[in-house]
Amino acid sequence: MTARAPAPRRFFELLRASATAHGSLVCVGLDPEPARFPVHLRGRPRAILEFSRAIVDATCDLVCAYKPQIAHFAAERAEEQLEELIGYIQEHAPSVPVILDAKRGDIGSTAGRYAREAFERYRADAVTVNPYLGHDSVEPFLAHADKGVVVLCRTSNPGARELQDLEIGGRRLYRIVAERVATEWNARGNCLLVVGATYPRELAEIRSCTGSMPFLVPGVGAQGADVAEVLANGQAPGGGGLIISSSRAILYAGTGEDFAAAARHATLALRDQIELARAT
Amino acid sequence: MTARAPAPRRFFELLRASATAHGSLVCVGLDPEPARFPVHLRGRPRAILEFSRAIVDATCDLVCAYKPQIAHFAAERAEEQLEELIGYIQEHAPSVPVILDAKRGDIGSTAGRYAREAFERYRADAVTVNPYLGHDSVEPFLAHADKGVVVLCRTSNPGARELQDLEIGGRRLYRIVAERVATEWNARGNCLLVVGATYPRELAEIRSCTGSMPFLVPGVGAQGADVAEVLANGQAPGGGGLIISSSRAILYAGTGEDFAAAARHATLALRDQIELARAT
Repeated sequence: MTARAPAPRRFFELLRASATAHGSLVCVGLDPEPARFPVHLRGRPRAILEFSRAIVDATCDLVCAYKPQIAHFAAERAEEQLEELIGYIQEHAPSVPVILDAKRGDIGSTAGRYAREAFERYRADAVTVNPYLGHDSVEPFLAHADKGVVVLCRTSNPGARELQDLEIGGRRLYRIVAERVATEWNARGNCLLVVGATYPRELAEIRSCTGSMPFLVPGVGAQGADVAEVLANGQAPGGGGLIISSSRAILYAGTGEDFAAAARHATLALRDQIELARAT
Repeated sequence: MTARAPAPRRFFELLRASATAHGSLVCVGLDPEPARFPVHLRGRPRAILEFSRAIVDATCDLVCAYKPQIAHFAAERAEEQLEELIGYIQEHAPSVPVILDAKRGDIGSTAGRYAREAFERYRADAVTVNPYLGHDSVEPFLAHADKGVVVLCRTSNPGARELQDLEIGGRRLYRIVAERVATEWNARGNCLLVVGATYPRELAEIRSCTGSMPFLVPGVGAQGADVAEVLANGQAPGGGGLIISSSRAILYAGTGEDFAAAARHATLALRDQIELARAT
């Protein structure tokens, strides 16, 4: 007997299915910071994996995606725990896609090695990338047609203004990135954009030129953006088109042994806040 | 007895010392690709480390820096070999600084994790970063005053034109990045810029607005740029200010058991070509 190959995972199908089944646009960002773990986990050899798995167990019926942030693993020499975590999500919550938040960006041959890292080694369903080096630097990711490629457009940090808001013939740089991605980079229909929740006007402008392209929207949790504004400005025509990501406000909602229950409570609250805003 | 702490490594001191002692502006880029390794190394469990160490042994008296490219290790699950390789360089060629080519870029708290990855985990002397997210995204790297922070400015790939050449009030984006870095981000004097050798006019323009800031210049080897043009357009006032990087043309100069000797020969040839161009 030969083992049957698993069905191929297609990012956009998984995203739609999870969003519908869970009635949720919430993406939980998995940014494990050992210094903030509850005391009973600290110092354990695989604390990062144990912490993250407990978060997944407590939230996987409430989310449309997970977004592990690779620096939090790399800084702790925990790449193997990241591999195991992604495998765990795909086994225990097989309908929930995994977006590897890596913000990679390099030239052709090296970009191919980064694509291999994200899609073959970690088996992520999508990955975040940086546009500064141009289309050819992103092409090795785009060539994986079943995978999502999430291009940084307008980020949520204060310094985003410095370059992303520069004006080129009446249009700001983030808008040019959005238009390029929507009209050229998206030939296989597998692009998304990162647009920070903290800048609702920019969110509306980027939506106006990108049709129904999904946005990954960080900034609603610890960074304090308003959910109703995100919905009002960022939804695609006909609704949806948003993956609203929160990390620290969920992961560290509780500080004791009940941290996973507290994370579930915070995820539920965010999901319901979003659904309320969608309905109004 | 307590062990004496090793002297702190200061990137710019090491760079100057190596460039002077070795009479060289050559940086060897360590981009190990197992499929291109000589047959006798293929399939060995630590082939990446063995290959890279042999290159270091054969070239360490001829270079001003090494630049391991992290994707080539990450794609092969070889982070431990990268740690060992950097440790090996710092032990066997202690005057040669290590630039970790990672092109990281993320917002504040995550950027701090990437800085920890580069400077604490890998103990790199410098790291490449992407400017798209603005000054605050680079600050956690810049805060390590003894380390070099190499900001992408005008890259060597064809797609670099797409965003980096956009014109903002008469100045192109790469020039604005160069000026920002030179006047604001470089408060601690620890910035460098990546400027591709394949665009000599841009190299000259960027030199014109950045004083003596060192440039990391890829593109002279496999990418085919002209060394004399790089020198003519990129040298700092008074000479120097260039780290000329070649990877594949050196690493894969030979394909047999003599690959390290072939790499030495290619490094020597590049060093001498540069020195000839400097003298004329």
